[in-house]
Amino acid sequence: MNAREREGAGSFDAPVAVVRDLVRRALAEDLGPLGDLTAALVPADCRARADVVARADGVLAGTACATEVFAQLDASVEVEWALADGAAVGPATVVGCVRGPLRSVLTGERTALNFLCHLSGVATATRSFVVAAGERTRVWDTRKTLPGLRALEKAAVRAGGGVNHRGSLSEFVLVKDNHLAGVSITEAVGRALASWPGRTVEVECDRIDQVDEALAAGATMVLLDNMTPDEVRACVDRVAGRVLVEVSGGVTVDTVGAYAEAGADLVSTSVITQSAPALDLGFDLATDKG
Amino acid sequence: MNAREREGAGSFDAPVAVVRDLVRRALAEDLGPLGDLTAALVPADCRARADVVARADGVLAGTACATEVFAQLDASVEVEWALADGAAVGPATVVGCVRGPLRSVLTGERTALNFLCHLSGVATATRSFVVAAGERTRVWDTRKTLPGLRALEKAAVRAGGGVNHRGSLSEFVLVKDNHLAGVSITEAVGRALASWPGRTVEVECDRIDQVDEALAAGATMVLLDNMTPDEVRACVDRVAGRVLVEVSGGVTVDTVGAYAEAGADLVSTSVITQSAPALDLGFDLATDKG
Amino acid sequence: MNAREREGAGSFDAPVAVVRDLVRRALAEDLGPLGDLTAALVPADCRARADVVARADGVLAGTACATEVFAQLDASVEVEWALADGAAVGPATVVGCVRGPLRSVLTGERTALNFLCHLSGVATATRSFVVAAGERTRVWDTRKTLPGLRALEKAAVRAGGGVNHRGSLSEFVLVKDNHLAGVSITEAVGRALASWPGRTVEVECDRIDQVDEALAAGATMVLLDNMTPDEVRACVDRVAGRVLVEVSGGVTVDTVGAYAEAGADLVSTSVITQSAPALDLGFDLATDKG
Amino acid sequence: MNAREREGAGSFDAPVAVVRDLVRRALAEDLGPLGDLTAALVPADCRARADVVARADGVLAGTACATEVFAQLDASVEVEWALADGAAVGPATVVGCVRGPLRSVLTGERTALNFLCHLSGVATATRSFVVAAGERTRVWDTRKTLPGLRALEKAAVRAGGGVNHRGSLSEFVLVKDNHLAGVSITEAVGRALASWPGRTVEVECDRIDQVDEALAAGATMVLLDNMTPDEVRACVDRVAGRVLVEVSGGVTVDTVGAYAEAGADLVSTSVITQSAPALDLGFDLATDKG
Amino acid sequence: MNAREREGAGSFDAPVAVVRDLVRRALAEDLGPLGDLTAALVPADCRARADVVARADGVLAGTACATEVFAQLDASVEVEWALADGAAVGPATVVGCVRGPLRSVLTGERTALNFLCHLSGVATATRSFVVAAGERTRVWDTRKTLPGLRALEKAAVRAGGGVNHRGSLSEFVLVKDNHLAGVSITEAVGRALASWPGRTVEVECDRIDQVDEALAAGATMVLLDNMTPDEVRACVDRVAGRVLVEVSGGVTVDTVGAYAEAGADLVSTSVITQSAPALDLGFDLATDKG
Amino acid sequence: MNAREREGAGSFDAPVAVVRDLVRRALAEDLGPLGDLTAALVPADCRARADVVARADGVLAGTACATEVFAQLDASVEVEWALADGAAVGPATVVGCVRGPLRSVLTGERTALNFLCHLSGVATATRSFVVAAGERTRVWDTRKTLPGLRALEKAAVRAGGGVNHRGSLSEFVLVKDNHLAGVSITEAVGRALASWPGRTVEVECDRIDQVDEALAAGATMVLLDNMTPDEVRACVDRVAGRVLVEVSGGVTVDTVGAYAEAGADLVSTSVITQSAPALDLGFDLATDKG
Repeated sequence: MNAREREGAGSFDAPVAVVRDLVRRALAEDLGPLGDLTAALVPADCRARADVVARADGVLAGTACATEVFAQLDASVEVEWALADGAAVGPATVVGCVRGPLRSVLTGERTALNFLCHLSGVATATRSFVVAAGERTRVWDTRKTLPGLRALEKAAVRAGGGVNHRGSLSEFVLVKDNHLAGVSITEAVGRALASWPGRTVEVECDRIDQVDEALAAGATMVLLDNMTPDEVRACVDRVAGRVLVEVSGGVTVDTVGAYAEAGADLVSTSVITQSAPALDLGFDLATDKG
Repeated sequence: MNAREREGAGSFDAPVAVVRDLVRRALAEDLGPLGDLTAALVPADCRARADVVARADGVLAGTACATEVFAQLDASVEVEWALADGAAVGPATVVGCVRGPLRSVLTGERTALNFLCHLSGVATATRSFVVAAGERTRVWDTRKTLPGLRALEKAAVRAGGGVNHRGSLSEFVLVKDNHLAGVSITEAVGRALASWPGRTVEVECDRIDQVDEALAAGATMVLLDNMTPDEVRACVDRVAGRVLVEVSGGVTVDTVGAYAEAGADLVSTSVITQSAPALDLGFDLATDKG
Repeated sequence: MNAREREGAGSFDAPVAVVRDLVRRALAEDLGPLGDLTAALVPADCRARADVVARADGVLAGTACATEVFAQLDASVEVEWALADGAAVGPATVVGCVRGPLRSVLTGERTALNFLCHLSGVATATRSFVVAAGERTRVWDTRKTLPGLRALEKAAVRAGGGVNHRGSLSEFVLVKDNHLAGVSITEAVGRALASWPGRTVEVECDRIDQVDEALAAGATMVLLDNMTPDEVRACVDRVAGRVLVEVSGGVTVDTVGAYAEAGADLVSTSVITQSAPALDLGFDLATDKG
Repeated sequence: MNAREREGAGSFDAPVAVVRDLVRRALAEDLGPLGDLTAALVPADCRARADVVARADGVLAGTACATEVFAQLDASVEVEWALADGAAVGPATVVGCVRGPLRSVLTGERTALNFLCHLSGVATATRSFVVAAGERTRVWDTRKTLPGLRALEKAAVRAGGGVNHRGSLSEFVLVKDNHLAGVSITEAVGRALASWPGRTVEVECDRIDQVDEALAAGATMVLLDNMTPDEVRACVDRVAGRVLVEVSGGVTVDTVGAYAEAGADLVSTSVITQSAPALDLGFDLATDKG
Repeated sequence: MNAREREGAGSFDAPVAVVRDLVRRALAEDLGPLGDLTAALVPADCRARADVVARADGVLAGTACATEVFAQLDASVEVEWALADGAAVGPATVVGCVRGPLRSVLTGERTALNFLCHLSGVATATRSFVVAAGERTRVWDTRKTLPGLRALEKAAVRAGGGVNHRGSLSEFVLVKDNHLAGVSITEAVGRALASWPGRTVEVECDRIDQVDEALAAGATMVLLDNMTPDEVRACVDRVAGRVLVEVSGGVTVDTVGAYAEAGADLVSTSVITQSAPALDLGFDLATDKG
Repeated sequence: MNAREREGAGSFDAPVAVVRDLVRRALAEDLGPLGDLTAALVPADCRARADVVARADGVLAGTACATEVFAQLDASVEVEWALADGAAVGPATVVGCVRGPLRSVLTGERTALNFLCHLSGVATATRSFVVAAGERTRVWDTRKTLPGLRALEKAAVRAGGGVNHRGSLSEFVLVKDNHLAGVSITEAVGRALASWPGRTVEVECDRIDQVDEALAAGATMVLLDNMTPDEVRACVDRVAGRVLVEVSGGVTVDTVGAYAEAGADLVSTSVITQSAPALDLGFDLATDKG
């Protein structure tokens, strides 16, 4: 991630109410009706310290969730972070430390890691695209997120240096090919400007003549879907800086550079949310003599 | 998936209350406070039919969630499935059909697909392991699931032909290496049998002498972690069929066959839940003249 | 409301999940732990028909909520609407009819009316501003809504012919005077364009030089706060159609016309949500012989 | 409000669980999936102090909600109140102070004010009626409240010096004209005394003979609806102090005095909840050098 | 239960929203993350019919909950009741019938019975007190109910022929001995009448002079706690019909008659909610050939 | 309860999220929309100390719930426990102390006691069975619990020295007589071992030949239902220690010893959850001079 974004992006965290709610649900899901049968076998007075350690290269995200897991589970557990969301990690990087009753550390371990590993996976995949896209072209996420986890995943995208497309269907207008089954581009854009003044009105275009139609109608952004870099370049030339140009459709880490060179302002991909492999992180545990 | 499981596995669906609750949350998340700004641009009386089409090889899962999306959004939308969860699909396989007001079809499309693509991704990854593991060795999931989605992911694992390890910490006892920071194997197993009679008591073993200790203490299952196939074979010989043997730790589709041959009863992997790429499915839309 | 909006605005209803959730809460709130003590005094087999009647001039809104009240309370109650949200009503206008067991009609009456009267009040106040503002200038709502009721109130604004400003802080950027305590207009807009590409970036301006600064920085919209119509006209001239101009700050039904003539594209007011008096609607009841 | 009530009324606050729940929902509603896009543009280390200032005459209410907003948003924000719920305020009265990170102050500002402005509006409207009603006659609220906000609005009525009619249909019996479609006054009161012994049984009367019937049947309270002050006086004479007399139906601040003089014990009005304009309060912000 | 109450009591059911919510939670609690492991072993196409049969003498309650269990679990299951809440049952009485897929019948059986057995237990215990108390004295419940189940238990008390004391602390005033640690009876009643006009103001009295003080202060009801029948009679004489008299404190089925003869209007007991043994009901199952 | 279990059982508390959620619901239920009308009559500055005192012999449980009641209601209230869950109490045993504002102590009293009295009742009933069963045979609970309260009741069973059978239908397989309407024992067990490897597979047997069939099929546990002690002994002999033997069906405190002597490993009963009378505990209050 380059410096430009870090400055303005502010907190990487999702809204705190979302974090609290999802952690509450995740803990309820994992503890079940009887609690942790196995942790109850360990002496109540045994204390432990666990280092949270990365086991692969990637980008950290989700620390606020892990902190919240232990806050909800046992307020006597202390969680400290050596690194913040957005930091690069590698094998053996100690990213933080959890200290408290062994039972609580063991019970919260998996839930905390489930947040950290998935969200760091999202941030890591995002960073790969960001690096490959270069300075000028931004990496955008999509609404192809895991059900219920969108706010967290969008925060992880920010931690990885990406930027956020629509968080919900309420945010702005995006006319896609399937909408055109019921309305023309010109009609759709006209109605959008009338019904939702002041908002972004983006139109998905599969052909350059659709770009023309969208711009003529007053669209404030175009989405070029499933085009080759050359096709993108032609459209970018036609747009001539009047509006931002987004490129989507099967873009990979290997091809994103070509689209960037073709002039895309934004490249969007669902891979970074829907298909990001978990980043491997674990708890290295020692009983605590302190 | 072989026939043996299909017979007994029953419904692949997660408990209906979980489906309803997660769909409700996913719709609220995607619609936001104003609803779908873009769908409102399409005429209210325009009707459509969308085929739900696979675009890659894989295994279908999550149909109950997609059905529920439209049931909650607009009861006049009809959803029919040509295939059930667990079915194999390939590029252009039509798995089902959604028919109703175009606005509702468009508004529900993404949420329905987010469930289908992720859960089918889990089922697909599971099926790969199941095929590679062969008839005798079963593929087990883990608690490394995405927060809040465990019940759905575990159902998808079943659809892929895998079987379910613990759904929560309440289900049975699994003494892992980190527990041994506070208690010995012998102590842990003894207490488990006393505190939680009638339940599975599994012990994670890194060495063959731990297997001996676990069995002597009365464990009803052993988990061999991070062993080579040869090491597994030695342990399996030692166990001699007295209890089930689970193997875990970095097992891949390429190596699972070797572990199966080494005699593992169950091989568990987090890859099928935490790192399964989404299966590509989409809506092919036509306005409906009927 | 003019025809232009009706065409594009689509459904006036809030997202259905919001309606369901708020109705559920409102019924729980009104029924309490014991249910309706008084309705229980009426014979169980007595049926009734109630006309829902306006008792003053205004605009109808909230019918979906009233329908949902009876759907949740007693599925045997039938609710029919003679008019839809957005319709003009006057004293004695029958807007709909509720028919079913007298007990259920009585128990649901107040909750249904609480939604209808408040939301119709919002729509009515909006319509007054819309009429006074004329064809060219649009009436915008604000985030000054009643806690928890925003989605419903924003839908009622649409029913009244107004349009919706931000539904949440996630939708787009609006730099207000209080933000300038920590950042300059130029910095804020620059960061906004970098951090949130593709989104509306609006800047509140109290003086014409701030308009200049905002436009130079790349703002896509300006909000003129607490200006006279003459000051607005000067700013509108300076903007010269490059971006939309919103006017806010103490605008009333009496003054909105002057601001419209001064060239405001949008006039926003909190009066239509936060201070709209309830529209008087009631149930005219007869026992049902049918 | 006179001294008599202040003594006994105790806390003006709504039950704490209600406050917590509604604040949680209001924050989720306002922050959306991405959080506050604009506040993120301000430097993270910038601190601010905001005075909460009234801009009109009225009565303060809702401070507990505003405190809770910041407690949930950012525990490092300090909120102090110079005045308590129930206090009279005027233009420029500083009612409290919020101090903490500028981002958090900005993000919570609107939600906190939405509670304060509405609830203070309710308290202010109530106080007007209380003053006009005089010492002997009490001002009662109704169940005509905004859906989901009843507990808060009823607390605001108390802050304004009013008293609370039924909080829900469970609290006591009130036989209204619409109930008489299915049962006579005599039957209804008789059943009420049998079914719900020990509870208030109030009967709405449109005519003096209904008052007679209600008292003969054993009603413990009568509600005179839509009567003139003279009609009320006649009924009050007939009741002769045996039960409390409530007056309702289009009573305004201008007419409440006449009803009080006519001998009403309680005058109820929906205006103070359903149609109370927001009291204007705002945040005056300064960056904090401390 | 005598005829007098049956006429006026209306539906025995708790508010429908409470039933829905508690059934949803009970099903989630019982199904867990994986659903019913055992029911999945039964063929999917096997259908069954189960009679719901009482196995002891008692009073039926909770049928609405049992119906709702199957409605939420599987809409294809049909539930019919031969008897309604409040009906007397004995060993082998068939109270209803459940018909549908065997898997669904088996999965819902326990949750449905948990509601039926507990609530019928409450109704049964209530009926015993009602019969022993005789025609003139009513049996009142208390706030000593199981957390979260109050609305259901209060409905079951109604089904058993009892009547409902306060459903919550909001309903009316009851000054108990512990309140007198901070206020005198005279002060408490005076403040209550001022703060909460129109509501029942009841005072717990341990001695006859407290009865005098309560009446002098204007209490509308007295609660005689832990008195002998003779002491109650003396108090009843003193009260002389001016207010209702409640008796509480260790009253049993054996002693309630004596208190009734002593003139108590109402006798309250926590035994019927907090300590009522479950009524034994079960499912008699046959596979369905229809 | 013998020492063996105390050592390993760990915390008696239910999962903390369950406690928080149920306390929140219980408080909302008891406070209603207006809060505690009566406590508001007591001076705001009056402080009190209440001893929590047992009034009968029994076993304490639910202290964490009572602590949470006051934590949620008023953080300034201090709660201290002299005894922990699982402790034996008798008449006048002081189990803890609550100290804080009199209003808050009074308002929370009933909700706190409702948890304590019910859960201590469960623990007390459990302890009676545990003592009667002797050292070798364990007392198991069932899924016959009060809807929504299972996790708390199962924790109370542990506090009483009992052990926990299934917490939900997800935990393990239990083939009961009603399942046999659709499948044979051999089929059911075979499918269970295939579908749910590694889990307990228990079979309910009414006859000794069913025991044979279950063991032959591979069941890991048998449940002998409604047998005499002699029949149990015969089955125990047949099982010969290969699997654990559970006995259920009308076992009482008086008969449990005979079943224990007959060789049952576990005896299960619903009486301890579904029909346990509340243990009598109360608040002894004094105003606090400290």
